[in-house]
Parts: sequence; structure tokens; C-alpha cells
Amino acid sequence: MNERPRIITLTTDFGTSDTYVGIMKGVILSINPKAQIVDLTHAIPPQDIYEAAFSIYAARDYFPKGTIHIIVVDPGVGSDRQAIVSHIDNAFFVCPDNGVLSYLLHSAESAGAHPIDSVAIQNAAYYLPEVSNTFHGRDIFAPVAAHLSLGVPLGDIGPPVKTLVRLSIPKIDTSGDTLIGQIIKIDRFGNLITNISKGTFEAFLNDDVNYEIRAGNASLNRLNSAYADAEIGEPLAIMGSLARLEIAVNGGNAEKQLGLKRGETVVIRKVGQKI
Amino acid sequence: MNERPRIITLTTDFGTSDTYVGIMKGVILSINPKAQIVDLTHAIPPQDIYEAAFSIYAARDYFPKGTIHIIVVDPGVGSDRQAIVSHIDNAFFVCPDNGVLSYLLHSAESAGAHPIDSVAIQNAAYYLPEVSNTFHGRDIFAPVAAHLSLGVPLGDIGPPVKTLVRLSIPKIDTSGDTLIGQIIKIDRFGNLITNISKGTFEAFLNDDVNYEIRAGNASLNRLNSAYADAEIGEPLAIMGSLARLEIAVNGGNAEKQLGLKRGETVVIRKVGQKI
Amino acid sequence: MNERPRIITLTTDFGTSDTYVGIMKGVILSINPKAQIVDLTHAIPPQDIYEAAFSIYAARDYFPKGTIHIIVVDPGVGSDRQAIVSHIDNAFFVCPDNGVLSYLLHSAESAGAHPIDSVAIQNAAYYLPEVSNTFHGRDIFAPVAAHLSLGVPLGDIGPPVKTLVRLSIPKIDTSGDTLIGQIIKIDRFGNLITNISKGTFEAFLNDDVNYEIRAGNASLNRLNSAYADAEIGEPLAIMGSLARLEIAVNGGNAEKQLGLKRGETVVIRKVGQKI
Repeated sequence: MNERPRIITLTTDFGTSDTYVGIMKGVILSINPKAQIVDLTHAIPPQDIYEAAFSIYAARDYFPKGTIHIIVVDPGVGSDRQAIVSHIDNAFFVCPDNGVLSYLLHSAESAGAHPIDSVAIQNAAYYLPEVSNTFHGRDIFAPVAAHLSLGVPLGDIGPPVKTLVRLSIPKIDTSGDTLIGQIIKIDRFGNLITNISKGTFEAFLNDDVNYEIRAGNASLNRLNSAYADAEIGEPLAIMGSLARLEIAVNGGNAEKQLGLKRGETVVIRKVGQKI
Repeated sequence: MNERPRIITLTTDFGTSDTYVGIMKGVILSINPKAQIVDLTHAIPPQDIYEAAFSIYAARDYFPKGTIHIIVVDPGVGSDRQAIVSHIDNAFFVCPDNGVLSYLLHSAESAGAHPIDSVAIQNAAYYLPEVSNTFHGRDIFAPVAAHLSLGVPLGDIGPPVKTLVRLSIPKIDTSGDTLIGQIIKIDRFGNLITNISKGTFEAFLNDDVNYEIRAGNASLNRLNSAYADAEIGEPLAIMGSLARLEIAVNGGNAEKQLGLKRGETVVIRKVGQKI
Repeated sequence: MNERPRIITLTTDFGTSDTYVGIMKGVILSINPKAQIVDLTHAIPPQDIYEAAFSIYAARDYFPKGTIHIIVVDPGVGSDRQAIVSHIDNAFFVCPDNGVLSYLLHSAESAGAHPIDSVAIQNAAYYLPEVSNTFHGRDIFAPVAAHLSLGVPLGDIGPPVKTLVRLSIPKIDTSGDTLIGQIIKIDRFGNLITNISKGTFEAFLNDDVNYEIRAGNASLNRLNSAYADAEIGEPLAIMGSLARLEIAVNGGNAEKQLGLKRGETVVIRKVGQKI
């Protein structure tokens, strides 16, 4: 049992127009009245595991050690998909085993440093007494997370799992003269966030190379360092706050202005050495 | 005065685009800095007492004993409608006396076990110093709830009330061969939640009877036990997470696919004994 | 260092469909696990400094002394606009220096009583280790506010600032027979909230004067004391919960019914003495 309050975050596709999220909080607080619950987002598009996977990956670094993250984007609820808890980089992830940890696992494995422990959730002692087939967020994920926050050891939740379900995350080829990335998230401001990380960008280009970034009909040939560096209404490329290449419009909405959707490509092409 | 933090939930039709909800939280925390505030939902359709009544009824079981629920869906604010606190099944409900507790009261009375104590909110010592005619959520309900959370006894809030305003909740006739239910809530996934409870459903049918469930142009003849039991894109009937009959579409949106609205009927008809 | 938990409120234009707000909360709780975070609103229209300025001004009175308010509506992020902390009327405001405190400052100066201390945020010891050019909410405002909540003195944040950026707030002329106000906020119910304060209204009119209030094609000649005082579906004028003249429709939506937008005028005209 630990003394200090534990943070539990929630990432779901439940929206906030129903009481589903409030009910999960009631379940958590019934078990651990000192849990500190933080909404990460409830606006994951319904059953969109990719966006959930990216969201939790991009956000978890900003939470303290020991934080417990519940992710419920769960098209397979009631089927035989497993439920899991994964212990990655000093944080716990409580979720269906449907690939929602793919970005996290990939990143943790690339870093190589930390052990990843995962268990299948199987100990019904940590569930609500009645478990529905339609709302495991309430009946399983919330109470298991609350018990974890009270100090229940991972091994009590269920047996170890070695292999987790993975989404296919498109690999980016940086070996040629052209790099093809994808828009993986469009935020409320219409900023187009790509899967081109700062590391990938820098591995592909170097200081001496000229390049063109093409997104829809926008052609850009430099990275801005701030939105305000571009003219009002002009598209720009920037290494965004999630350390990914973003296409934005200063004072405007790139999604609307460029007519681009999630999944569409952003292409970077080398166009010769700087003189 | 009790020591442990008390949970106060909020159910309103205020939305979250204005600061009304944030202001209520400021009022609560000014009075009891240790209150733990949980948003149940702020997306009740404006002035829709029926949906508020169902929402609080379906959610309150998942909160710990002693929880204080504020419900502000209040078309009569500033008129002479009463404000009340009701003590039902170890929880407190702070709200206008406009029928918003109807489902709760009906259920508690059916169970018969617990005393229901209600008082009219009349002791201005527990209001904000200035009371507007337009925002009792801020001026009356929030501060009264906060004082309750500090241990103020119910009797200090105002005099007992014996009869509360009730909505007419349609009774379902299970005596014949046809049962007519109603869609009472459509959730973010487009699931159509009916007023047909598990108990009502089982009282109407038995294991030996064949039946047809008709919702719009969908005709279903069994209960699924999970969304994933139906083909992708197919409508299904399921005893949902709120223990009510739901019509859903696996991987889709039943509201859009069947073109049904809140208030429309779902009909179950017996079609003979199983052989 | 103070013992009791400190309230930190958030007012942004980030919406809640992305994880930006959740990430700010993670940053705050990483620094001060006991901070109590309250969402004021995240639905300020993108980069709308006027609405943010009015929102924080109208809400802050309802929070306890010592509350720290973060306001991030920041079209100039990454440019050379200053970031500031202002200490006004026993509360702290952490925000870009872009005019978002204009209403507050104007009101505090009119009252004349309290000293206003402002500092430029310059001490990087209170930032996140890495500061992006696009998300100062996460990298600067959240951590500075969290450190303030731990008791860091204002003077440690940066050097004093004497002059803050101001929006031009339209002054209302009450000297003639006609007063021209403006709709400054439309809330979720479609209520049209004007910049005509109770004080201004009463300075312009007196008990013996007849008047006409014109908003779109609605002509009103009295103040209602409650929404419920008007017929259902009828427009009305009322001194609203924010102590500003509001145009509303009882049981309806004035924005839709009158076809008015933010920025449009509401005109009050004296039409003779009462007999």
C-alpha cells in the first residue's frame, strides 16, 4: 500500500455526452478515494485504435512515474480478446490487448533499456461483482486500475503475457531521395501531425541539402521555428510539440485550407545541395 | 464534520463551452477545499428533465456511499419551483423539484427498503451572499452541496418535504403478447437504449418462447450477449450495460442506420413456443 | 511552501478532443501532486483573446483566494510576445501578455484598491527542460503555475513588468438618450450576453424613465427578473448571472430566434418619463 495519491488517466472513445466516463470515475473512487483522475481525452474517434495508440504514446511522458493509464477503445468488448496490464517505463497501461500499445512498445523496444512486464487480466477478485459484455471500462479496467493504485502487485492481476497484439505501424524509408510520411492526427486547430519524427527528419536530411515538403497543393522548402514565423494565412512546416513534423497555417486551419485528411501523405524530396 | 473527502458529482445541461461549470466548481472548492468533484455529464439536452432523470438514476449506483449528486436541469429557475435535497439509498441529491428524481424515487419505492428524506432548500445561510434569478446552480445548489459535504445535517437546510414532483414514467404492460417499449436515450455510439429493463424483459418472455424485437425496419429474434456476436454492420439486440434492452449495430451506429429517434418505440412480440 | 492544496484553473482554446489539456495536467501534477486542477473552459474560439479576457474576468470571483489561473489563448506563441504572471486581487494569472487580462485590469484599476504586481516569466528554472516554440502551455505556463502553487515567490519568476498589453474595450457612452452596447458572448443556451453591466444600465436609466431595448427585430421595454417571467418562446431582457444585460428566450434560443451574432449591437433608447 502506498501513501501518496496515485494518478489514473483515462483515454477513451466514449465522448462526454453520456455518463460512461463519470461512471468509471465513480468506480475508481469507490475503490481508491484518493486516486487522482485525469482525463487525457474521450474524443478518440469511435473504435479508432490507431489514434488511441498514438495519443497515449505522445502524452505519457508528461506524467509522473507510477501513473496508471487506462485506455478503453475496445471494438472487441465481449469477444475473446484479452485484457492486459503492461508495465512500461515506470508507468502502467490497463487496456484491451488490441494493439493500442503499439507505438509505446515500439519506442520502448527501440530504446532497449527497460523491461516490459505484461499480464493478462484474469483475477476476478479485482473486477466489479457483475461483469457485463458491453462495458469492460466500468466492470474491469476501472476497478483493476484502482486496485493497482492501491498497491496490488502486477502478478496478482493475472499470468504473464509474452506477446501482445501489434498494429502495423508504417515504417518510413529514409534511404532514398524521397521520404513518404502520413498524416496520423489532425488536431482541433487543423494542424496536420505526421508520423515523421524529429529523428527521422534529421536522419533523412542534413544541413547541406535543399528539400521540398509537399502536402496537398502546398509546397514548402524550410522548417519554421514558430507558427508566427509565417505570414498570416500561409501554410508552414514545423517540428511540432509532439516532436513530429506538422503542417500548419499561421492563424488558420491547415486541414480546411489544404483539404487533407488523416491517412493522406506528406512527401519530402531532396532537391540538391545548398551552394 | 467528517474527515475524509466527499465526492460531489455534477449533472447539468450547461455544456462545457461556457464557464458555468467551472464557476460552480470554484464555489464548491471555496467552501470545501477537500471536495472531490466528478463530472457526470454536462451534455443533457437543454432543459431535458427526462434524460437527466434517467442519467442520474443509471449512474448513481457506481458511486460510494455518501456521495452528493448535484443535478441542474432547471427550466423553472427563478420561478416558484422548489429546490430540494433528497437523501435516497445513502446518497444525497441536490436539485430543483421538477421531477428529475422520478426514476430514482420509483426504484427506491419499489425496493421499499430505505427511508427517503427530502427537505426544501430554504436556509439562505448556505447560499452565496447574492442569489441571482438565473443561475441557482452557482448561487444555491453548489454551495448547499458543499456545505452538506462538510457535514451540515439535512435538517439545517430546510423543512421536510413529503411529496415531490414526478414525471409520468410510461409503465410497460407485460400482460399480453406484445410489449411496447420506448427509446429513452441514444448514446454517443448511436446505441438505442430502451426503457425495457432486464427484469421487465424476463417477466415478459421465458425460455420457451420465440419472439420478434422490432426497431424501425430491423427485426431481431434473439438477444446477443456481446456486440461482437453479430456480423459487422448488422443490427442486434443486447441487454446493455445499464441493464436495459439496447438496439445496436456491431461496429456501426444504430441511430443512423435505423433512422430512429429518442421517444420512438421498440416492440417485442411473442411468436409461439419453441419446439 | 504552503501546506494546503492550491487550486489551478485552466482556460484555453485547446478544445478537449486532443490530449493537449491532459498533458498540461500531467505536467502540473508532476511538479505539485497536490494541485487541484479545475477546467474553466477549453472552448474559447481559437485565438479569440477577447472571449478569453471576458471569461476569466467573469469567473475569477468565484474561486478562493490564492487561486492560480492559467490562460492559454496564444496566437503569438513562439514570437517575441512576453509571458507574464500577474497578481491581481489575491489571485495569480499566468498567461501570454496579449491583452487577455484587459477586463480584469480595467476592473481592478477602477476599484483602485489593490496593488497589481506583474512579472515577465524569464526564469527557465521553472520551465520544462525542453521548451518548444508551439506549446508554451505545456512547457512554460503549466510548470510555472505548478511552481507558484508550491510557494515560489513571484519575484523568482522574472523581473517586474509595469505596462501590460491591453485590448481596446469599447467604452459605453451613457450621457445621451441612446446607449449602444455589444453582444460579447453567446452561451450554450443561445443567451446573448452584452457588455452592458448592471452599473452601466442603472447609470443610464432611472426608475422614472421608459425605455426600449432593441436586439435584432426584438423590441423589449422592461427587464424581466427571471426567464420564467416571459411567455414560452418570447424574447426577454434580463440582468444575467454575470451581472450583464442578457437577451434570452424563455425555453428557447435567442441566438437562433433573433439571428444575432457576437459583436452585433444591442441598443437602449429612452422614450420618455413614466407618468
